[in-house]
Amino acid sequence: MTRWVRFEDDGEERFGSLSGAEIVVHAGSMFEAPQPTDLRRRLDAVRLLPPCQPSKIIALWNNFRQLAAKLSVPEPEEPLYLLKAASCVAASGAVISRPPSYSERVAYEGELGIVIGRACSNASEEEAAAAIFGYTCVNDLTASDIIQRDKTFAQWARAKSFDGFGPFGPVIATDLDVRGLTVRTEVNGVERQNYPLDDMIFPPARLVSALSRDMTLLPGDLICCGTSLGVGTLKDEASTVSVTIEGIGTLSNTFVQ
Amino acid sequence: MTRWVRFEDDGEERFGSLSGAEIVVHAGSMFEAPQPTDLRRRLDAVRLLPPCQPSKIIALWNNFRQLAAKLSVPEPEEPLYLLKAASCVAASGAVISRPPSYSERVAYEGELGIVIGRACSNASEEEAAAAIFGYTCVNDLTASDIIQRDKTFAQWARAKSFDGFGPFGPVIATDLDVRGLTVRTEVNGVERQNYPLDDMIFPPARLVSALSRDMTLLPGDLICCGTSLGVGTLKDEASTVSVTIEGIGTLSNTFVQ
Repeated sequence: MTRWVRFEDDGEERFGSLSGAEIVVHAGSMFEAPQPTDLRRRLDAVRLLPPCQPSKIIALWNNFRQLAAKLSVPEPEEPLYLLKAASCVAASGAVISRPPSYSERVAYEGELGIVIGRACSNASEEEAAAAIFGYTCVNDLTASDIIQRDKTFAQWARAKSFDGFGPFGPVIATDLDVRGLTVRTEVNGVERQNYPLDDMIFPPARLVSALSRDMTLLPGDLICCGTSLGVGTLKDEASTVSVTIEGIGTLSNTFVQ
Repeated sequence: MTRWVRFEDDGEERFGSLSGAEIVVHAGSMFEAPQPTDLRRRLDAVRLLPPCQPSKIIALWNNFRQLAAKLSVPEPEEPLYLLKAASCVAASGAVISRPPSYSERVAYEGELGIVIGRACSNASEEEAAAAIFGYTCVNDLTASDIIQRDKTFAQWARAKSFDGFGPFGPVIATDLDVRGLTVRTEVNGVERQNYPLDDMIFPPARLVSALSRDMTLLPGDLICCGTSLGVGTLKDEASTVSVTIEGIGTLSNTFVQ
């Protein structure tokens, strides 16, 4: 398994792979034959960036059986999704501020993120599996009270696209088998979500195959796999949300009111 | 008024301004002090690209009074919108093929497009007006029968994000006053839409100001202002849709079944 990070180093954007507490700086593209250099950086001495810059962010709705059962919605026949604006990304460690224009509930949603590694269109499940570069942790932040504010039009994209509402990371882990893993979300140190990825209605290869029939997926594109039980509202003056998946690590962000 | 195009020239992407039948090739960024060069190209000798590459595409729903009245939906208090995937863009002249995974109705929607010129967040209407780089024509193609296919979740993003479903162009026109102008859409030479932009519920500066409170708008971002009366389905084996706005010109694309 390789764990990739992107970071800022003297004002330049760099990327590399983790080796213990060090980053082995690479050159070229993360997605196409990245070349290791002789440069090393200490992980604790750099400022992490989101591990890639997606050209689009697809966010699944209703992709876990336990949550579908709890909400009494039928399991969908096809993946149901919205798009989050690419401008909403944030790195692990970033402080996310309440948007000045919105004063109501903000919810956290711990999720698995799929990062695409190669252009992928009308792909079979096998081709889709090969197009997956790796996995990351996502906190799909949502301005919950916007979604149904207008009775004629559900405002999903708007509710989920505020600046900072798409933190993901801290790394992209390649060659990770997500079967058997769980997503664990803590808010200010208290566990709020702990759900199995095996409960996913559309698991990764099937999901990427289906999405690739709707649009061409590109290297760096991020697919947020949807969440399960335990979603809630961030009520404290400052709420630190951590999303942990074994093999990827912990995405941690503080949301301030 | 300047009319900007982007085009492919010997495998390279270039951009420039129109001068009669010629393109004055520019260097640098279209959005930040572009520099004219000595290079000229004949407009009819190059392959046009979409005039910019948006990092996000915001598409308005219910932004014209006449259409709201016809559909008996209330005029919204705030802009209602979805996101189209950035991968769906196409240039004027591009042939757009029916997606192999979708066999039902495809609709055309002729629209005004706003192109952002500078980063813009929480902007006043005056600041928003200054952040508008220019205007373009859009055909907001839609796989109409996907939207309501699932009873629990309106699939707007999916229905509007197929590859090729976001043609815009042929140019971005700067310093254009869109008041008093109309959007005229023809399908295979027959006029289907001819509606006044003055009927817009959220006109450009007000719209950009509102959207900038939801997310940071970036140079090149495209806002599709929504459509009005006359939307319809593309039924012929090959349908050439042209969207014309005075000062911008005609966006023309053929959709093949």
